[in-house]
Amino acid sequence: MQSQIIERKVLRTICPDAKGLIAQITSICFRHQLNIIQNNEYVDHRTGRFFMRTELEGVFNDASLLDDLDSVLPQGTQRELNHAGRRRIVVLVTKEAHCLGDLLMKSAYGGLEVDIAAVIGNHETLRTLVERFDIPFHLVSHEGLSREQHDANMVAQIDRYSPDYVVLAKYMRVLTPAFVQHYPNKVINIHHSFLPAFIGARPYHQAYERGVKIIGATAHYVNDNLDEGPIIMQDVIHVDHTYTADDMMRAGRDVEKNVLSRALYRVLAQRVFVYGNRTIIF
Amino acid sequence: MQSQIIERKVLRTICPDAKGLIAQITSICFRHQLNIIQNNEYVDHRTGRFFMRTELEGVFNDASLLDDLDSVLPQGTQRELNHAGRRRIVVLVTKEAHCLGDLLMKSAYGGLEVDIAAVIGNHETLRTLVERFDIPFHLVSHEGLSREQHDANMVAQIDRYSPDYVVLAKYMRVLTPAFVQHYPNKVINIHHSFLPAFIGARPYHQAYERGVKIIGATAHYVNDNLDEGPIIMQDVIHVDHTYTADDMMRAGRDVEKNVLSRALYRVLAQRVFVYGNRTIIF
Amino acid sequence: MQSQIIERKVLRTICPDAKGLIAQITSICFRHQLNIIQNNEYVDHRTGRFFMRTELEGVFNDASLLDDLDSVLPQGTQRELNHAGRRRIVVLVTKEAHCLGDLLMKSAYGGLEVDIAAVIGNHETLRTLVERFDIPFHLVSHEGLSREQHDANMVAQIDRYSPDYVVLAKYMRVLTPAFVQHYPNKVINIHHSFLPAFIGARPYHQAYERGVKIIGATAHYVNDNLDEGPIIMQDVIHVDHTYTADDMMRAGRDVEKNVLSRALYRVLAQRVFVYGNRTIIF
Amino acid sequence: MQSQIIERKVLRTICPDAKGLIAQITSICFRHQLNIIQNNEYVDHRTGRFFMRTELEGVFNDASLLDDLDSVLPQGTQRELNHAGRRRIVVLVTKEAHCLGDLLMKSAYGGLEVDIAAVIGNHETLRTLVERFDIPFHLVSHEGLSREQHDANMVAQIDRYSPDYVVLAKYMRVLTPAFVQHYPNKVINIHHSFLPAFIGARPYHQAYERGVKIIGATAHYVNDNLDEGPIIMQDVIHVDHTYTADDMMRAGRDVEKNVLSRALYRVLAQRVFVYGNRTIIF
Repeated sequence: MQSQIIERKVLRTICPDAKGLIAQITSICFRHQLNIIQNNEYVDHRTGRFFMRTELEGVFNDASLLDDLDSVLPQGTQRELNHAGRRRIVVLVTKEAHCLGDLLMKSAYGGLEVDIAAVIGNHETLRTLVERFDIPFHLVSHEGLSREQHDANMVAQIDRYSPDYVVLAKYMRVLTPAFVQHYPNKVINIHHSFLPAFIGARPYHQAYERGVKIIGATAHYVNDNLDEGPIIMQDVIHVDHTYTADDMMRAGRDVEKNVLSRALYRVLAQRVFVYGNRTIIF
Repeated sequence: MQSQIIERKVLRTICPDAKGLIAQITSICFRHQLNIIQNNEYVDHRTGRFFMRTELEGVFNDASLLDDLDSVLPQGTQRELNHAGRRRIVVLVTKEAHCLGDLLMKSAYGGLEVDIAAVIGNHETLRTLVERFDIPFHLVSHEGLSREQHDANMVAQIDRYSPDYVVLAKYMRVLTPAFVQHYPNKVINIHHSFLPAFIGARPYHQAYERGVKIIGATAHYVNDNLDEGPIIMQDVIHVDHTYTADDMMRAGRDVEKNVLSRALYRVLAQRVFVYGNRTIIF
Repeated sequence: MQSQIIERKVLRTICPDAKGLIAQITSICFRHQLNIIQNNEYVDHRTGRFFMRTELEGVFNDASLLDDLDSVLPQGTQRELNHAGRRRIVVLVTKEAHCLGDLLMKSAYGGLEVDIAAVIGNHETLRTLVERFDIPFHLVSHEGLSREQHDANMVAQIDRYSPDYVVLAKYMRVLTPAFVQHYPNKVINIHHSFLPAFIGARPYHQAYERGVKIIGATAHYVNDNLDEGPIIMQDVIHVDHTYTADDMMRAGRDVEKNVLSRALYRVLAQRVFVYGNRTIIF
Repeated sequence: MQSQIIERKVLRTICPDAKGLIAQITSICFRHQLNIIQNNEYVDHRTGRFFMRTELEGVFNDASLLDDLDSVLPQGTQRELNHAGRRRIVVLVTKEAHCLGDLLMKSAYGGLEVDIAAVIGNHETLRTLVERFDIPFHLVSHEGLSREQHDANMVAQIDRYSPDYVVLAKYMRVLTPAFVQHYPNKVINIHHSFLPAFIGARPYHQAYERGVKIIGATAHYVNDNLDEGPIIMQDVIHVDHTYTADDMMRAGRDVEKNVLSRALYRVLAQRVFVYGNRTIIF
């Protein structure tokens, strides 16, 4: 006799739009006696694309459920069914502590449903902080290595931990295409400007020189084009003429860590869909 | 032979939560060959209440569609099917021009899907502004009248226009229960504070005296308890020690008109559900 | 016998920083028996530049006061003494009504200390709106004219009104250097993006394509480089995947008019100093 | 021969307003050959009160400078001259980690010019976190003690460290008047609502029940009336119907820690003046 464990899972569906999709998907869930805790749906009418996130509770027979769905959903449908709940990340850092510190605090004391499997730095600077939270820290130095070699070393170290996502918490190096393609839609970066303004290096100094009255931060998926991946979350704060570039940098750190943390919160809850260069967030 | 006019309508459903509701409702829409342009659904798990807004396009047979829905939806379901598109309002004012001006501009030049059928004031102050926009203005003076008599006169004047909603755009009088009950969930007010702070008169002076660093505004449905109706939208701006109460009032006017306008935008699109003292906004 | 009228004036000083400047300037004001209502001072330590705005009340002998200041202030000092109070503007428009409408409302009903001397459009579209407020509207069409000829016609029409500032309230044409140089630090524009993002045409469509999660607006002085003049004020609002480019445009209109109005409020009060490509705002 | 050490100090002056005050104070600084790095001044015209913060650099003779100032400033002047730079705090906590964690991170890794001398809790919960940062943690339990006894024990423990300020980082107990009066204008609290809304216990649950669309936090000095001390900083975030009280609590934690940290930044830089129930912040 099979045990009847009540579980919670998230079904994510992306497919060409068609009449009756919601009815078909939710009818199958109903037939499987699954309760819909929350359902979110969006159609991009410009491209005729349908997105749905269905949070389900009940006794799951995954294979049978997915078979039933596949029998009705149109060709080219992407669908996935994952357990709801905590995810596992590896964090990459360089020297700045603020985003990392916020992740460590929220993983340990609440705020993000996440386990930090390891932190990897290309400098030793943040080892102490990480070890204070009893999490492994690995130095993978880039010194004397080509970008390709270094990224290969990073990948090797990261893959030991099989993370759900790789989080760049102020990791100040450009990633190679090989690295990015190894983790499709799984690498999340925090950029210290409101993109697309101030792409590239030293955005606070660029912002100071331009005399802007707002500064901001952008959390985005990393793709092959630097600072051009799909945006997840952005926010800004107001500054005035009394701010030097250093003052902007200091004030901006709080925006960076808040934006990264809010973006991760949604990603970890499987609420973010990537579609072309855009994100749909339920 | 019946003409086959393609229309867009909004179906709104509130009922006790049950397994299969989304499937049942959307299946009926599918059988009626209606296309779901947008679907939003929310379950208040605390009270077991289900809310759904379904925007449909196609050839409607309203009576048959509603019959089919009634045959499957649980007892105690409230459902309504309305045409999508422009709504009709009457605006009540006293002496302040800013919220009214914003509504007049947006009705005439875009921004709100609304026709302003008439503006009614308890003072003459704003007649010129209203007539500049070729909209009827009526003075319904409260002088020498009891509150009940005045409100009865207001109702008589309003009802000539059969509005979908009555909008209080800085109408500075307390309404009688008779007035409020005459327009259930149809009277929308803008209050010049971030409720529940500074209930009652002269909120900017209260804010100044308290030395707050933010001021705000709240758009809400009016119910029998002054300033305690279901909140639709709120926003704030930052102020500092250089603001007098008058400065707060001036700066606050922009927040008031923005909040009222954003709230109305959602209400007019039939995106706001009232449930007890709360609103659900899709 | 001289009349002793109490007036309020604003003294603005820009000069190389030096020890004792505040003491020297305020001592002279004191000797002239002028009361300092408000004093704001800022030193840009990077460039050694001193900025001070001194709001004074009393009986003024302008020539004598300025002579006394000139005798102590360093070479290369710019100083100006202007009456406090209402300023006079000419507004340029094309077809969009929202920023213009907000200025008309605030000029007529309070919120900006400004007289709108005239509105000039390169299309007829907004004549009715302007005339509703009993303000002259002039059509200066660009049809069949070179940019230089058209701008010369604009200048001729503007100069009839001797405005303190020229406000571009969604005037959708690029100005010639001749026009810009004719009104140094006197032309204020509202750009419909958070500069420096989305410079140039159709910023909302650019924003939509990039998939940003914030949109914004920037009020700035116009200089010879399009969209690159000194920024006065910026603000943003959050958007999500449900916003089309048209939705962004509609929501953005409120940000545009708010940002323009807040920037003008500071400019009209003589609180904005331009220094290189930056503004100092007291 | 006296050593000529260049120092930076902050002079803070509060006195009745009078003509010539700025001239007199800055002239004395000039005579002492002190450079004014930054000067901020404000007059509360309602009460005729003058406030000035003067950041000075040079070789100080404190006694002589203050004597010279006292010889010209009106009776009833409060003035203080303090070194600029790092301050020393003691932090009080109960069980919540987020505000404390942010202070620990910023003290150790930059962001606040502050040394945390010690953390005192009325529970053991946060000992590990504090000790991870090599800072002393003391348990001062309230169990079995009167409020007066407990507060006396707290004071005894705090005073061992002679802090400049006492920071309540989610210390969930009401302080006795004796405690408050022992540290006049030196106790800073973070309250988890946008005061004056939701005074008292469980503000997020109150906010949920009221159906608000914004939640916030308030940093304020503590005086004898609970939640009524002078406000330093406030901020809010938007919430919607999908937020439970627990969701509000989680999201609110980031606002709380940001607001507390921004308020402390200003307090530590000696930029906050308390005047009655208001703060003036330069």
